[in-house]
Amino acid sequence: MHSSEDSDTPSSDAPFKVAGNGLLSRRLLLSGGLSVSGGLLLPGAVAAQDTPGAEAGRFSIPAWSKQPGPGPSAYGQPSPFVADIMRDPGRANPLYPGGGASRTPLHKLRGAITPNGLHFERHHAGVPAVEPDQHVLMINGLVDRALAFSYEDLLRYPMVSRIQFLECSGNSGALFRDTAPDGTAQSINGLVSCAEWTGIPLSVLLDEAGVQKDALWLSAVGADAASMGRSIPLSKALNDVLLALFQNGEPLRPEQGFPMRLFVPGWEGNVSVKWLTQLKLTREPSQFRDETSKYTDTLADRSSLQFTFPMGVKSIITSPSGKMQLRSGELYQIEGIAWSGAGSIRKVEISADGGQSWAAAQLDAQHGDKAFARFRLPWRWLGGTAQLISRATDSKGALQPTRKALIAEKGQQAFYHYNAQQCWQIDSTGEVNHAYV
Amino acid sequence: MHSSEDSDTPSSDAPFKVAGNGLLSRRLLLSGGLSVSGGLLLPGAVAAQDTPGAEAGRFSIPAWSKQPGPGPSAYGQPSPFVADIMRDPGRANPLYPGGGASRTPLHKLRGAITPNGLHFERHHAGVPAVEPDQHVLMINGLVDRALAFSYEDLLRYPMVSRIQFLECSGNSGALFRDTAPDGTAQSINGLVSCAEWTGIPLSVLLDEAGVQKDALWLSAVGADAASMGRSIPLSKALNDVLLALFQNGEPLRPEQGFPMRLFVPGWEGNVSVKWLTQLKLTREPSQFRDETSKYTDTLADRSSLQFTFPMGVKSIITSPSGKMQLRSGELYQIEGIAWSGAGSIRKVEISADGGQSWAAAQLDAQHGDKAFARFRLPWRWLGGTAQLISRATDSKGALQPTRKALIAEKGQQAFYHYNAQQCWQIDSTGEVNHAYV
Repeated sequence: MHSSEDSDTPSSDAPFKVAGNGLLSRRLLLSGGLSVSGGLLLPGAVAAQDTPGAEAGRFSIPAWSKQPGPGPSAYGQPSPFVADIMRDPGRANPLYPGGGASRTPLHKLRGAITPNGLHFERHHAGVPAVEPDQHVLMINGLVDRALAFSYEDLLRYPMVSRIQFLECSGNSGALFRDTAPDGTAQSINGLVSCAEWTGIPLSVLLDEAGVQKDALWLSAVGADAASMGRSIPLSKALNDVLLALFQNGEPLRPEQGFPMRLFVPGWEGNVSVKWLTQLKLTREPSQFRDETSKYTDTLADRSSLQFTFPMGVKSIITSPSGKMQLRSGELYQIEGIAWSGAGSIRKVEISADGGQSWAAAQLDAQHGDKAFARFRLPWRWLGGTAQLISRATDSKGALQPTRKALIAEKGQQAFYHYNAQQCWQIDSTGEVNHAYV
Repeated sequence: MHSSEDSDTPSSDAPFKVAGNGLLSRRLLLSGGLSVSGGLLLPGAVAAQDTPGAEAGRFSIPAWSKQPGPGPSAYGQPSPFVADIMRDPGRANPLYPGGGASRTPLHKLRGAITPNGLHFERHHAGVPAVEPDQHVLMINGLVDRALAFSYEDLLRYPMVSRIQFLECSGNSGALFRDTAPDGTAQSINGLVSCAEWTGIPLSVLLDEAGVQKDALWLSAVGADAASMGRSIPLSKALNDVLLALFQNGEPLRPEQGFPMRLFVPGWEGNVSVKWLTQLKLTREPSQFRDETSKYTDTLADRSSLQFTFPMGVKSIITSPSGKMQLRSGELYQIEGIAWSGAGSIRKVEISADGGQSWAAAQLDAQHGDKAFARFRLPWRWLGGTAQLISRATDSKGALQPTRKALIAEKGQQAFYHYNAQQCWQIDSTGEVNHAYV
């Protein structure tokens, strides 16, 4: 309906314009900002009678207000009315029993924390039902004393807690290909989540075993049927890696490695080995299957890079996002998440015109390094085509690359570590789809 | 076995001693701190063979490592092996249908976040099954325009996220009485939790309705069958109160007010009205049932105080805590949580000798004002009687009172706002019980 900013209704936005195609000032997010202009009144706020029930029908007393509901429960579950907010586990592949992934519904969540039931999963041989009383964590190899720990022993060690993201290095990997995927923020980008991880600094356990001088790598192996193994430089292991036992306050969920996993901050998720049962100190990396046949980066010049651990600076817009339907002329909050394996997020900028003009988004307070940073900016969809893009800058000054720049470096045979700027395109009917720009 | 610090084994702790009866330096929590003394080696770290499986029996390959487990799922659940980590809903009272509370198992959780399934509950008429499509939030009374909002409307408003505690003002209320309760940290103190709350600043919605000059109070009413109502000063409502829609990233759980509730930071939980359906601006408080017959503080001089909203500075030790069993001469982490309705936590001190000597605990990084602050300190139980007490100081300089001081002010007919220092007593057999000092 409104094809330019000169039409009647959108003109009231003029004092708040910060970039092209409807981007409005983040000052509008502050108290009072939305009411200073009648034209910015959000829809649905209809005049109401003074007393509930006064207007028959709309304000009649609902059934749930008339008699008591059930009492307290031992362990709470989501409302059945939000049963569509789910991970998408996909179909089981009979040739790959227990393999696969489920993705976090990023476009339906808010804040920085991913609830435990919706944290993404990636399994190489399904979810083992590990009995904590029978599970052993061994530390051996180039140590003064090989040690074995029970779950109960480990619960008595000093722990630390950190709110940090975890991202599969294959997240968004389809975007290396020529054909833009047709999906949602969940289906394209849902292999990333953020939680409060609590565990024992690995340095405490390694010191107890006594690391020998010639040890340079740590091989971590899980108790799943894949014996998922990864090699980690000892310097990282001694720096900030946790033996994680709790997630968002409670013991790890089975699909997150119960009773124990590695948590390797800022690095590709695959190295945060789940159901951890062995840590072996070695001189060289172990060349596990998942660091030779998989999780190696193919470059544009057809060479390959191994052990490319850190996850780059990245952001995605979660709303509006793929498969949503907008209404012309209305006010929306552009909202999304940004993260970086190198630290915190310094800035997120948003464009509504495919990258021609940019405006800085408002950032929520961040819960320390490597947590999700949520950003938002008001935007009025003017009714024409719009291309929404976000780009993040992290605390080290790294700017999220364009897709063109990323492909120039990595080529299109790559699959891992895709962190380029992403675009949601709104067509003239208000349908939102993923697009390349 | 070890009755004093002069006996053989504990003497190795001497360089780390910071206060009486076994309290050790928080420096021991840092990397390497636990391995500098052989005597501090934690139990259970037994010498292990170099290769798993080499020692038959103990290191045999477990069943779950031999074949793939089930694949990814839509919504995750806790491991069946931690099924004892539950809220305690108690028995239903036929005279009070849907009434009651369930308490958070504080002694089994770590970190600052309470997972949604374990957040405490308090209901006055059970959990209503509110259909979001049929639910209306009305703002009326002394406003320029009475407004009504649907759930879908509200999802499009700008939101903010904060990690903050919620505490029932009746939490720990049994401790006003003469007989010390016989229970756990959960049963005595479990009506407090901490989550990331995401919602719309109430100021945004109130500005849209247009608050009239003579409005000084806000009456909030829930859609449960109790029509739970509370009056809140408008100054607080405009300052930091949220209309909360999300908890730890996902929509509110039914027992936490789905689809929407007030969240009133730092104030007694009862005013954070759940299943919120009306906000009425008034000149005076509404004198709801739950602010006349309940939630009023009886004082020592037999007068009463109404509208005593803020929750005081408080801390509890969650481990070791009630009903745990210790082993003589062993090293433990004293660990717990502290919080204050006035801001953040500046300091937590711990005593192991009933308050004769104190040592400062290590505090985890805090996630902003009014979040749980987790503290810890190493301690060796020397085998005699020990009395563990914690006391917190908040960012305003307020020190958690002794029970004696609190009772001098409030008397013993009081029930709400109990925030005195608490003591866990270890007897000579290692049994831990609540005690007054």
